[in-house]
Formats: sequence, structure tokens, C-alpha cells
Amino acid sequence: MRVHAYAAPAAGQPLAPTTVERREVGPNDVLITIEYAGICHSDIHTVNGDWGPQPYPLTPGHEIVGLVTEVGPEVTTHQVGDRVGVGCMVNSCGQCANCTRGEQQFCLNGTVFTYGSPDRDGTVTQGGYSTHVVVDANFVLAVPDGIDPVQVAPLLCAGVTTYNPLKHWGAGPGKKVAVVGLGGLGHMAVKLAHAMGAEVTVLSQSLKKQEDGLRLGADHYYATSDPETFTTLAGTFDIIINTVSADLDANAFIGLLDLHGAMVNVGAAPGPMPVNGALLAGHKSFTGSMIGGIPITQDMLDFCGEHGIGAEVEVIPASQINEAYQRVLASDVRYRFVIDAATLS
Amino acid sequence: MRVHAYAAPAAGQPLAPTTVERREVGPNDVLITIEYAGICHSDIHTVNGDWGPQPYPLTPGHEIVGLVTEVGPEVTTHQVGDRVGVGCMVNSCGQCANCTRGEQQFCLNGTVFTYGSPDRDGTVTQGGYSTHVVVDANFVLAVPDGIDPVQVAPLLCAGVTTYNPLKHWGAGPGKKVAVVGLGGLGHMAVKLAHAMGAEVTVLSQSLKKQEDGLRLGADHYYATSDPETFTTLAGTFDIIINTVSADLDANAFIGLLDLHGAMVNVGAAPGPMPVNGALLAGHKSFTGSMIGGIPITQDMLDFCGEHGIGAEVEVIPASQINEAYQRVLASDVRYRFVIDAATLS
Repeated sequence: MRVHAYAAPAAGQPLAPTTVERREVGPNDVLITIEYAGICHSDIHTVNGDWGPQPYPLTPGHEIVGLVTEVGPEVTTHQVGDRVGVGCMVNSCGQCANCTRGEQQFCLNGTVFTYGSPDRDGTVTQGGYSTHVVVDANFVLAVPDGIDPVQVAPLLCAGVTTYNPLKHWGAGPGKKVAVVGLGGLGHMAVKLAHAMGAEVTVLSQSLKKQEDGLRLGADHYYATSDPETFTTLAGTFDIIINTVSADLDANAFIGLLDLHGAMVNVGAAPGPMPVNGALLAGHKSFTGSMIGGIPITQDMLDFCGEHGIGAEVEVIPASQINEAYQRVLASDVRYRFVIDAATLS
Repeated sequence: MRVHAYAAPAAGQPLAPTTVERREVGPNDVLITIEYAGICHSDIHTVNGDWGPQPYPLTPGHEIVGLVTEVGPEVTTHQVGDRVGVGCMVNSCGQCANCTRGEQQFCLNGTVFTYGSPDRDGTVTQGGYSTHVVVDANFVLAVPDGIDPVQVAPLLCAGVTTYNPLKHWGAGPGKKVAVVGLGGLGHMAVKLAHAMGAEVTVLSQSLKKQEDGLRLGADHYYATSDPETFTTLAGTFDIIINTVSADLDANAFIGLLDLHGAMVNVGAAPGPMPVNGALLAGHKSFTGSMIGGIPITQDMLDFCGEHGIGAEVEVIPASQINEAYQRVLASDVRYRFVIDAATLS
């Protein structure tokens, strides 16, 4: 089955319309008619080859929402007509220590990521900037009612990437959470931490987006360009979610943690950061998190359904993908571009 | 009350016999006749001025065990004749957020450490290389029966320093704990983690102390000088207790952590270490711990009493303190020197 898609023909080349082959629906497969696909910063890094060589042509996209159009005979978890989501992974071995504890993104035998990954059948996976996709039912998430589907797509990456560490480190009533950077990841972290009942502070380079931050659920907003921020807030936070992918002074932020606090890096992991061990002495953790396994992704979607949480999006037709990439690189998006898949064909 | 002691007259000078003044026993004070005082590596750093200028003459020592000789009228927790211990702290404000949660070592108004610290009355605290000490009852620990008192002294620093993070990070049955370095701290970490039911691995530069390590409770012993150690053990540990105070390749050790694992630095905190954020993505923590508050110190002593755990010690007379310092610096001690306080007078 050949379906419409947008693909990068080579590293650094603009994306262009094309078609990709989708496999026949197998016994445990789900065919999804894609409604929307989010544009994640990592799509841009990947197609540009910033993170190593890629197989081209490559169709990116791992924030996928759509409707089930066909299911294989062994599928019991999804039905034709259901609204479903697909995130960063489409398969894993299911047998290893990490898969069995629901951390499929760390499959010891190699996670099959949603695009650019060698699939079980030897083909290379192609992502969500496409009209249809065929995915193993175990990697298809149920989308709850109560969220506009256009706002769902970014939850599949930006949502779970921030939900996972907030949950892991116990964000909730009585906890103080700081979110460093108010972009695609950061705006989700603010919404989620607020909905969990935490007191939320945005730490952004400037106060430019302060109004937005407060509207999204932040209780406080500080500029990191102001050195006073680091004295005023010293020893304050239980959790710092660092969504910034550029280098920053980790020690300055660790100084903002309370005893037992954790600074969690969730942006595209930057290079080594010098960390001052003495700053960690109060059981402070310098730590990281990478997306989330299937169970916590479903948990996140259910949480968002209950709390009516979706991403803040700007919907674009496929013809504007390359322009959107430029705007993402210029931080000119509030807060996630979503491609209307109907414009792909 | 003037009592016998050993003190450093100035930075880098050998310690020599002297006397120090102990305050009169106040309403909530305990007068302790010291039996033994451990020699901690940090005593040497401190009297040498490695960690900044000190008030001299200075009597070090913060691993103290002895017998209660007198109590103030308001003391209800200790009685004359009780065997008690004093660790790294002798007072704190008792009111701040950290004191009220039992983390007196992080008192926001300034912990009074056992030596070289400005005390509440304006004098400078003098430590345990001495025949007697007067300490606020809240900072006096009850020593349980079942441990040879000479083996108790090092528990007050080396014991709690390793017990605290092992407890915090959940060492116990089913957990894999690595201990980096088999010295004063490391040998306690091995004994404690083993008693908690964890599977214990020593990671030492060489296999020189392997027999000792296994005798102390380690299940496995690897040399970090062998690069193969880092491939064999990749992704293995839930907890790594790093007792080494010198710089090491943090990323190599983080690579040995399983998902959700923690590498805890408890040695004298080294300078900044470059940490690769990507290595932390599986919720791995690069973290630290500093001694422990009064509640967890008592908890540690009780645990040691139940399990019959003491430090491995070499008892010396006061006249050998300077020689012992040289041997500590040369790592020539298995595993803690303890001064027999009867030899001080």
C-alpha cells in the first residue's frame, strides 16, 4: 500500500511530497488513517543529520493521532473507528528486562523507533508526515475523549517526555516544580505539573512569554538572564525539568534545588556538563529522562483526558513544513506545529 | 574544665598534646568521657587547611564514642553510665526547614560541626581527640549493645555517610549495589549493603584487597584498572556508592547503572565532573550525600547493633596520631585508625 507522505530526500534538503510503502496489515497490526502529526524539534535534527547519518529518503514524524481504519485478526485492544495515537516507537523485542518493565524505549535488543529505524521485516520505518501508518497494536495508544484531536498529537512525544519525570519524581500538591525553557516541551511541563497540583515556576531566558506562562498554569515566572533569580530562588525546588537542549550552567540550576531535589534533563541531551559534586550532597540528583514506555504514555493520555489537557498548537498544511522548520529553529512557535494530514494527499 | 587533647598548632603542623577547655554542663548538656575517637580522612584535610583556613590550635575528631559521666537537669534521653556516640555535628538551630526534617547537617542557620565551628557561645568547637567532651543532648546518640565500642567510633561518620544513601536509594534484597573504593567509607558501605540484603560488588583500582572485600560481605570484586570491567558490568547496578575523593570518569560509572539507578558521591566532594546528560536518560541519577541527620544516625547505630556491625579498626595510642595520618594518606590502613582516648592523658 503506497500512501502520500512528505520526506527529506537527503540531509539538509527541504522536505518534499512523495509516497511511502506501508506493509499489509498483519495479525496484530493496526492501520491508522492519520489526522494530525506534530513537528518535534528532533525531527529537524534527525533529517538534518545532526545526530548521525540517516537512511534517506526519510519521512519524519512521531507525534501521530488518527483513526483506526483496519485491524488484524488478533487485535483485541483497538477497533475500527477508534481514535488512537502513536509516539516515538512502533516496536521492540517485548522480552528483555527493559521491555518487560514497560520501558520499551530502552529495549536491550533495539527499539524500533517510528522513523529511520530498521523494522522487524528489514525495511526502514517511515514516520507520521503521512496519510496512513501500519503499527503493531501494542504500540498504538488509546486517545481519550475530552481533548481536541489536533491538540493530542504533541502529547505523544512532548507530553510523555515531560509527564514521565514529573510522575517519577513525585510532582503533586506541596511540591515546587521549575520548568526551564518555555517551548514545545516546556509548555507541556507547565500544563502537566499544574494539573498534578504542584506549584509551578517557569525559568526562561527573558520575561517575553511571561503572560503565556501564567496563562498555561505557571504560578511564577523568572528570567534566567537576571542573576538575581539564582539568589532569590536558591534551595527552592523539588523538581527542575530542564527542556533546554543547549548547554547551560548546570551548577547554577542545581543550586536552586531543595534537599532531595532533582534536576531532570529532557531536552535533546547536550554534551557533557561539568557538575559540582558538592552541590549534590543534599541527595540532590542530576538526572535525565527519555520519552517514556507504552504504559506511562497511556497513563499520560488518560491523565490529559481527565484534565482536558492538550498542547497549544498552530495547524499548518503540509506545504508549510519547511517554513515551519525554520520557525521552530528560530523559536517562533507557540508551542507546537501540527500538520493537517488531510493536506498531504 | 580543661581536658587533655591533641591539637594541630597550625596548618600542616604535626599534632601535639595540649589541653582544651570544655564548657560547664548546661541544663541540656551531656558530659562524655571519651573512650575512642576515629581518624577520618577529612580530619587530615581540615587540619592541613586543604579546605580553607581554620582556627588554630585545632583538635580534630568527629567519630567519638564514650560513657556519659554527667547530665544536665533537663536531659531525659541519656543517663550517667550510658555508652553514647557523637558524630560530625554538636548543634544546629533546630528551627529551620532542614533541622525540622532531621537534616541538621544542612541547618540553614549554620550547623555547629564537632570541631573548628563557631559554637552558640562564641567559642570554637574542639573535637574528639580528647578525654572529655560536653555536647547538647540532642546531638548525643545512644550506642546499642552488641558492638565492640572500639568498632563503634567510625560508625559516627563513615557509617552514617554510607548508610544514609544506601537507605535513601533503597538498598535491600534484589538490589545490586556497587561500592567504588575499599577504604574507610567503602568497607562500611560493603558491610552495610550486605547486611541490608543487597548483592554487593566492589569496584577497586586493583584486586589487591579482593580477599578482604569478600570477607567483609562483597559478592563480587572487580578492578577498575581493567577496561573490561566497564563492558562486563554495563547496565548492572541500582546503586553505586562512590567513596573515592579523587577525580574519576563519572560517565564510565554511570554506564554501569541500570535504568533508574543512582551514582552517589560520598567522598570528599571532588571538583566539577563532566557528566554526559544522554547517559542519564534512563532516569539515572548522578547524586551525592553528606553524612546524615541525627535521626538517620541513630537509625544506623540501631541497625548496626541488630546486625552486629562495627568498623574494622586498628587501635593506636595518641602518640601515633601523626604517623597514622601519614598512613591514611598512603591508604595504608584496614580500615580505620581509632585513638584509644585513655592514652591522651
